[in-house]
Amino acid sequence: MSGEFAFIEALRALAVHPGARGFNDDAAVLELGGETIVLTHDAMVEGVHFLSGQDPADVAWKLVATNVSDLAAKGAEPIGVLLGYQLAQDDARFVAGLAEALDHYGAKLLGGDTTGANGPQSLGLTAIGRATFTPVPSRSGARPGNAIWLTGSLGGAMAGLEALNACSGDSAAYRRPQARLAEGLALAPQVTAMMDVSDGLLLDALRMATASAVTFAIDSAAVPIAVPEQRRDEALRWGDDYELLFTLPAGVLPATPATQIGEVLQRSENALLLDGKLLSPGDRPGFVHS
Amino acid sequence: MSGEFAFIEALRALAVHPGARGFNDDAAVLELGGETIVLTHDAMVEGVHFLSGQDPADVAWKLVATNVSDLAAKGAEPIGVLLGYQLAQDDARFVAGLAEALDHYGAKLLGGDTTGANGPQSLGLTAIGRATFTPVPSRSGARPGNAIWLTGSLGGAMAGLEALNACSGDSAAYRRPQARLAEGLALAPQVTAMMDVSDGLLLDALRMATASAVTFAIDSAAVPIAVPEQRRDEALRWGDDYELLFTLPAGVLPATPATQIGEVLQRSENALLLDGKLLSPGDRPGFVHS
Repeated sequence: MSGEFAFIEALRALAVHPGARGFNDDAAVLELGGETIVLTHDAMVEGVHFLSGQDPADVAWKLVATNVSDLAAKGAEPIGVLLGYQLAQDDARFVAGLAEALDHYGAKLLGGDTTGANGPQSLGLTAIGRATFTPVPSRSGARPGNAIWLTGSLGGAMAGLEALNACSGDSAAYRRPQARLAEGLALAPQVTAMMDVSDGLLLDALRMATASAVTFAIDSAAVPIAVPEQRRDEALRWGDDYELLFTLPAGVLPATPATQIGEVLQRSENALLLDGKLLSPGDRPGFVHS
Repeated sequence: MSGEFAFIEALRALAVHPGARGFNDDAAVLELGGETIVLTHDAMVEGVHFLSGQDPADVAWKLVATNVSDLAAKGAEPIGVLLGYQLAQDDARFVAGLAEALDHYGAKLLGGDTTGANGPQSLGLTAIGRATFTPVPSRSGARPGNAIWLTGSLGGAMAGLEALNACSGDSAAYRRPQARLAEGLALAPQVTAMMDVSDGLLLDALRMATASAVTFAIDSAAVPIAVPEQRRDEALRWGDDYELLFTLPAGVLPATPATQIGEVLQRSENALLLDGKLLSPGDRPGFVHS
């Protein structure tokens, strides 16, 4: 993974525009003609981000939802998307799912590019949105004394993928993730920091704590999970749930249903404490895109 | 190819935003906060749009230049780009070429996403620019009586690819195409229609004529070529040169060096005449992305 991180650091060094931290699930913020716009680009590759043979309509839905989720975390309402589409077996199903997702989130298809079939299918989507509140929420605003909150519950996508692989049970949470758009818009004026949980709660919490130069103390038992209790540890580390992780000043209640899962401390040696302890050395806090 | 065209038509049917015709080398136009912004997305796949083993710095340059070329055709100055990057062998060289191209065209890296290595490398870039003149030039404004003009010359990229394959001779025109940005900005207030020639002059002229509901009559001998005369037919059909094709009212001289290569006629049975004749049935007018 270090190669990837070095590359991202090199890219970040290029990204000198203020607010340009838009790599790997963070979005870019751009002041333009009196508006604040938010731009994000997510890519999905067959065999990495979706299964070979998965319904292309579900793949299209997820591609839109993951990008809209990045907008939601910035309190931005979608304007439109540009699609990079590698032609495949059932393009019509892809278009059907794309239309459904765009309609659901109120986004237009603005343009894009198609490429020939060649190896595992590679898809990219750029979403552009309009910020509804400034300053736009970032990952770096969490302050000691803030409470840490989470919308919804975790582990649903994990169980959904298992159901899909087993051809049995409800796989919707994996196939058709819901971006927390309404929640993000409602929370944007309140939060001190916000991001979506795409790579696992613990990893994303670690990222937010690091960006904010604080320590996050998370109470694992407080985290709502959508799977049996014995799978709590996995649910906290699994990705693809697209809930919103955010911080609020102590005593402020969120404008949308959410659960307090911890609190922000002064930065100590480690940026993340789970039930007061460090993660053990071999414990991967989440899914690192490889 | 019909599968591809059907797919693009389905996508276009989704693209209900005014001006949203941004598929496959056309750019989308969006009014936002008192500004007119232009968005384009181009994808490049290893083995299709670039050679396996090509210098990643050249690949990065071309990825930027092809997108900036789409902005240039709209008279838009670049603001920034979002990158979809599939990790590969020599990411540092890619970053070096990316930095060079972004600096050259005055664009910032705003964000993006990285994905793991998996099959042929797939790259996507979204570029966003600010229109310098409205209405933004389109492909559909050519009118009977207009003159057809072209910047630069054709065939250089074809010869460049041959040189690269032969490991001998000057391959720069293929490896490092130059987007006609200054020319596009200068021409935008003058033109009745404009686009970049990415897929071959004859194919792109056919597209512009079709979009404008007119017939383009092109004088093949008038087209400047960068290769020996016996390769004129190929040069008119080869892509990757990224010159600007545009139409002007009769008698208007372009603000930038260019060559008149034909004239616009009332729409007749066929949208494209070359030296007064139809293309023969088996004659492919250009490169269709497959």
